[in-house]
Amino acid sequence: MDYGKISLEQHKKLKGKIGVTLKDNLDTKEKLSIYYTPGVAAVSSHLAKHPEETNKYTWTNNNVAVISDGSAVLGLGNIGPEGALPVMEGKSMLFKNFANIDAIPIVLDVHSAEEIIATVKAIAPSFGAINLEDIAAPQCFEIEEKLINDLDMPVMHDDQHGTAVVVLAGLINAAKITEKKIEDMKIVVVGSGAAGVAIIKLLNAYANPDIIAIDSKGIIHHERGDLNHTKIELLKMTNRKKVKGLLHDALVGTDVFIGVSQPGLLTEELIRLMNKDPIIFAMANPTPEIMPDLAHKAGARIVATGRSDFPNQVNNALAFPGIFRGALDNNVRKITTEHKIAAAEVIASLVENPTEDNIIPPVNNEYLVSSIAKIIV
Amino acid sequence: MDYGKISLEQHKKLKGKIGVTLKDNLDTKEKLSIYYTPGVAAVSSHLAKHPEETNKYTWTNNNVAVISDGSAVLGLGNIGPEGALPVMEGKSMLFKNFANIDAIPIVLDVHSAEEIIATVKAIAPSFGAINLEDIAAPQCFEIEEKLINDLDMPVMHDDQHGTAVVVLAGLINAAKITEKKIEDMKIVVVGSGAAGVAIIKLLNAYANPDIIAIDSKGIIHHERGDLNHTKIELLKMTNRKKVKGLLHDALVGTDVFIGVSQPGLLTEELIRLMNKDPIIFAMANPTPEIMPDLAHKAGARIVATGRSDFPNQVNNALAFPGIFRGALDNNVRKITTEHKIAAAEVIASLVENPTEDNIIPPVNNEYLVSSIAKIIV
Repeated sequence: MDYGKISLEQHKKLKGKIGVTLKDNLDTKEKLSIYYTPGVAAVSSHLAKHPEETNKYTWTNNNVAVISDGSAVLGLGNIGPEGALPVMEGKSMLFKNFANIDAIPIVLDVHSAEEIIATVKAIAPSFGAINLEDIAAPQCFEIEEKLINDLDMPVMHDDQHGTAVVVLAGLINAAKITEKKIEDMKIVVVGSGAAGVAIIKLLNAYANPDIIAIDSKGIIHHERGDLNHTKIELLKMTNRKKVKGLLHDALVGTDVFIGVSQPGLLTEELIRLMNKDPIIFAMANPTPEIMPDLAHKAGARIVATGRSDFPNQVNNALAFPGIFRGALDNNVRKITTEHKIAAAEVIASLVENPTEDNIIPPVNNEYLVSSIAKIIV
Repeated sequence: MDYGKISLEQHKKLKGKIGVTLKDNLDTKEKLSIYYTPGVAAVSSHLAKHPEETNKYTWTNNNVAVISDGSAVLGLGNIGPEGALPVMEGKSMLFKNFANIDAIPIVLDVHSAEEIIATVKAIAPSFGAINLEDIAAPQCFEIEEKLINDLDMPVMHDDQHGTAVVVLAGLINAAKITEKKIEDMKIVVVGSGAAGVAIIKLLNAYANPDIIAIDSKGIIHHERGDLNHTKIELLKMTNRKKVKGLLHDALVGTDVFIGVSQPGLLTEELIRLMNKDPIIFAMANPTPEIMPDLAHKAGARIVATGRSDFPNQVNNALAFPGIFRGALDNNVRKITTEHKIAAAEVIASLVENPTEDNIIPPVNNEYLVSSIAKIIV
């Protein structure tokens, strides 16, 4: 099916995908007086004195801003705010559909970290939480860190943590199947953008396995002079044996390949360098680093991709709806590493009997959102 | 009825007044692929190349940001973004109820003109139009002017122009009843905040009547050394006879009193200084400058207030829904003075046979929004 063509037609027909709905109608003068002037003045006066109660009287108890500057959209790259808007509207649909959260797409016509931070802080009182989306690395790290520090509300860059949580969930079940412990695993992570960095940090926090990180220049090691701040930080949790070289140097004797990089990067020969029962997360979009059938032919035991037409889809829609649902419901102010690990464990636990083709539950699992939300406290 | 108490209860019960609704559900994998990845990439790529078509493919064809920094909310003054939020949510209800527009309340945690301008410009691509609300004078003038200039989309500060349009509409009908021409009228405008300044500018553009403006220090005249930029500009269109003094000096021999000032400011004695058939717009909220019965006792022929429990309610909900509906539907990029005058004429024309107690149509007039929208082209 030509989804692009249908998508263009359908967007044009519906004129966008979301709208505003009212929780009560305004069919009488009394209702106007209750919801607007003069009645609303009592609510405003109360919140002016008690701003911490805003979410008890306004829609901030259930709304999230989905914010992007359009600098790293899907596989399309830096396409600007207008290009990003249909994706953010789609993300708002997912929020509503999976978690009944009222999400508002906000695309930004500013692009420096400083301006993005200032804008998000300026509009923050309008929302209960902030979902950052499709903002390019490395500035996405600085933006998220600063906003988490400065705002007294949940802030999460989903490209980082949504993916990381689901990868950890999948790896927990893959470890059961292969009877390996994650702390004993050797793992190669290819791609050091938003998702790659977050995956490394979360795996490190979870079990401190032996990780090698690879960027477009090869293995990230201590003697490289071209590393930015983020990659220098990664060295604290990767490459404990100070390996140099390229992907094939890194892959020798590893248990897990995690790719958030480019189509076709992984080959059958490379998989043959890995340990017994290779675990492959090939998440390049829309074409994975290696197609599952080829990977299995080369000996891969478990293959996960980002695609819905293969088994084991790493879909961040498994994570963010429940995480934000829980943060809003339980008045959580910071989404912590512990929350993300707990969410991954919940997601993993929803697969009752993990098998090679079933390490990750489907996004429409009926217990998914509520089970995650419960542990975000 | 104690609207404040009921309002607090009702806001707490509903947890805010608006939510997000989806234009289609996501009940199949195909729909996810159409509205989100991979299909949405085609829409994003198209808009990256043709950003001017964003409103054909996203909800910007029908959405408006309702933006306030909370610096001049209702009669409550500077109560901050949290205090302002319930009012902006209420305004969003009005937008939806009267004009089927999806309005999003955005309250700002920044308060300088420069920061407000920067923030609104940064988020502007997310919306089809900008409704500024409850921003204090005089900086509201600078903010609106700069945003109108810099953004290629409709921007209107409703506290200014909504009120001005309805006052002009009422005055057009009041002139018919009293058989006076607006261009021959002597008019006193008390209050030189957002609404007062806009009323003066619109009346001036419409018919150039003889206007005297009054602020808290008295008549605005050429020899005062305490005038800000906005008030100096007002001198170009007011006080052609260079009158000095206070309200009672200004009122002698005038036809119209327009108050956007303080309860009780106008007295029976003051009305007796006016010409035959005094026309009184006493719009202080919630208590007018003079109560209608007292005004009539002193000889006022026509009295309008801001209240729904008296005849002739000056309600800006008569103007903004149709103005924004027309601007969005007709792809208008600037809301001009001509638009505002045309809107006032339309509103006036919807009162078929104006009488003393019927110079302004009700907000639920079935032709109101569509009639205004038609002329915003």
